[in-house]
Amino acid sequence: MSAVTSEPNGTTTEKKGLREGAFGNASALSCRECGNQIELGPHYACPECFGPLEVAYDFPAVTREEIEAGPRNIWRYKALLPVPDDIEQSPNTEPGFTRLLEAKNLARELGIEKIWVKDDSTNPTNSFKDRVVACALSAAREFDAKVFACPSTGNLANAVAAAGARAGIPTAVFIPSNLEQPKQVNSAVFTDNLIAVDGNYDDVNKLAQEIAAEEDGWAFVNVNVRPFYAEGSKTLGYEIAEQLGWRLPDQIVIPVASGSQLTKVDKAFKELVKLGLVEEKPYRIFGAQATGCNPVATAFKAGVDAIRPVKPDTIAKSLAIGNPADGIYVLDATRSSGGAVEEVTDDEIRSAIVLLARTEGIFTETAGGTTLAVTKKLVDNGLLDPSLETVIINTGHGLKTLDAISGIVGPRATISPNYDAFEAAGLSQA
Amino acid sequence: MSAVTSEPNGTTTEKKGLREGAFGNASALSCRECGNQIELGPHYACPECFGPLEVAYDFPAVTREEIEAGPRNIWRYKALLPVPDDIEQSPNTEPGFTRLLEAKNLARELGIEKIWVKDDSTNPTNSFKDRVVACALSAAREFDAKVFACPSTGNLANAVAAAGARAGIPTAVFIPSNLEQPKQVNSAVFTDNLIAVDGNYDDVNKLAQEIAAEEDGWAFVNVNVRPFYAEGSKTLGYEIAEQLGWRLPDQIVIPVASGSQLTKVDKAFKELVKLGLVEEKPYRIFGAQATGCNPVATAFKAGVDAIRPVKPDTIAKSLAIGNPADGIYVLDATRSSGGAVEEVTDDEIRSAIVLLARTEGIFTETAGGTTLAVTKKLVDNGLLDPSLETVIINTGHGLKTLDAISGIVGPRATISPNYDAFEAAGLSQA
Repeated sequence: MSAVTSEPNGTTTEKKGLREGAFGNASALSCRECGNQIELGPHYACPECFGPLEVAYDFPAVTREEIEAGPRNIWRYKALLPVPDDIEQSPNTEPGFTRLLEAKNLARELGIEKIWVKDDSTNPTNSFKDRVVACALSAAREFDAKVFACPSTGNLANAVAAAGARAGIPTAVFIPSNLEQPKQVNSAVFTDNLIAVDGNYDDVNKLAQEIAAEEDGWAFVNVNVRPFYAEGSKTLGYEIAEQLGWRLPDQIVIPVASGSQLTKVDKAFKELVKLGLVEEKPYRIFGAQATGCNPVATAFKAGVDAIRPVKPDTIAKSLAIGNPADGIYVLDATRSSGGAVEEVTDDEIRSAIVLLARTEGIFTETAGGTTLAVTKKLVDNGLLDPSLETVIINTGHGLKTLDAISGIVGPRATISPNYDAFEAAGLSQA
Repeated sequence: MSAVTSEPNGTTTEKKGLREGAFGNASALSCRECGNQIELGPHYACPECFGPLEVAYDFPAVTREEIEAGPRNIWRYKALLPVPDDIEQSPNTEPGFTRLLEAKNLARELGIEKIWVKDDSTNPTNSFKDRVVACALSAAREFDAKVFACPSTGNLANAVAAAGARAGIPTAVFIPSNLEQPKQVNSAVFTDNLIAVDGNYDDVNKLAQEIAAEEDGWAFVNVNVRPFYAEGSKTLGYEIAEQLGWRLPDQIVIPVASGSQLTKVDKAFKELVKLGLVEEKPYRIFGAQATGCNPVATAFKAGVDAIRPVKPDTIAKSLAIGNPADGIYVLDATRSSGGAVEEVTDDEIRSAIVLLARTEGIFTETAGGTTLAVTKKLVDNGLLDPSLETVIINTGHGLKTLDAISGIVGPRATISPNYDAFEAAGLSQA
């Protein structure tokens, strides 16, 4: 990037400064491991201990009224994000402020009092990734990036390609070459720079890191601008609290891939309390994984801190991260809040997708199926209190993972086009 | 329905009354042909002349402030719809208040001053049908319907099945048995009552009319509760005006299937003027059709009033109505406003889908591609004034019509997973 450039000899030099207020109220990048703070820039690892960096803030007073007067998208929370004050003026996909639906039919099915579904399937490219990508895009712009890029197999690719198109910044999206053709189309429609890589997702990811290190001015959303990107998930927490009438839920169930989303929702709740925007109260955080990719659930159940990487084998492909970067922080957040991390089989995931559709008219992808199936399991095994108010997060749209359920739903009957055939098939209720 | 019941001898009798305020400020059903007014009920044809019925109102004073204080969905306009005042309390999919995006990149490509995209692809089931179905659902509830039903090949089926699930009312969705399996899954996930019919869409539609006549208590959204259903499209017009800052656009381009949406947006604009919610001003309405199903465009160009039915053959399947019920009203609205009805080829539709995605990050289905391609053509042939502000409506999501563009977009290159291969492919910008 122009702000920080790799020189031929491998050293980096400041080339030009960042504009005033480029990152709003963000004050520094802070190491989650050693607490070391460095200046805001396109960095993701602590220069002292190589720990992950996250954005720290110096928040002014922020009121509910100011937020409520803002736009109907994530920028209503711009004072709490690493973005400039004029962020709405820069073309972006305007994600967020998705539906929070009270799910009474589902509550009855689960045998619990009150449950809400935060439905991110109605975001611009139909997943929560539009939130994080919008924050990464702002950072890329402030760093004067030439290319906006990512390695991905699905939701992230869609979000990056779409956001880059709207912002008028060139994109480069790297996918495994054996990705199903419909999923390739979902991203190729937005960019003429979809690049197929002969290898699996890990190979694609490694290539992205190589390119980020070699090329000047490439912003890989989940590599060199990751600290800014990750902050976007906080908006899920802010919205849930605001949509509940400015209060925190008692329990929340969140899917775990890298673990970033869960830890950022927790961060959001804590920030709201600190800023006096909601009352302090205890809340339990639960993480959801698929049995085919369960490293954090395994560590949770074993009562250990070390997360042993696994080789993913599950239909919940958007959760299939075998070595989750934020896994240990998920263990912290769930344990310290009195929650848990639970896992479910692919068949339980399929059934939960259909259950959510049949009870609430929401078509979720496999990640949302995982979250709901885990919720059901937590009720059954007594870890989730059925008398307390629960929120679950639906992170993406079922249209993207149709194959998962195509074998288990279909027509009830096939009839000739006349009323007699309709009656003969036993469909009449007259 | 219970309110009006078919007796065994074929006559109908009033069985029980409707509750007070069941249809809000709606006052009657009015015939669009002869002006005859009848009581609100599950009727769709004028008993005098068989003309189409539409909802008439007795509006009280309505202020911008009251609307702005309402929920972030179509119910903020409940005072202008045939729904009860407590409509938000009944479980529904909460559609509407979708993005209105200013499209600067697209404007540049088209060579026009200012264009906005009203993006209904982010509705709960990803099309504008969620709006009309929500209004039909309210009517079905007030008529105490036992089954909520429709014939459909796509968007409408999704919307009906999802809305019924959430409302807890049994659904029945009739589709042609040769419908592609992914499209069957999109609806079957929501209902265990998807019924495949051996025949084409016209056969399915005819069967629906037969069932509506024979069965007691079946509410077919686009048959016997059609007048209530159709009113839902007005919310597109209300939202566009509110999101522009309470003013009407100069020009608007709307796809034409039955023609209902175009005429209802026009009705909405006129109502807003009449209620003093926006200033009166001239606006031009344009209709968009595919050349493979162009009955209204043909009549417009020929300068005649009679619409000659066609046999549809186009990739824009959600617009493929060969004998559009509201076609003559589309001719009225476009001619009297100084607009036009134009048509485009399937290839132009495909190119427009990619153009919208590449310029604004919006993935539209073939209907939206038709609307944009027509807009481009109207600029080229001088019928649309490039110096005036234009709004186009994107009615649905490209994920539902992936096949349309799968042949024309794809990866730029396939490489090995290392930086040397990346460089060798000419992808480096270092």
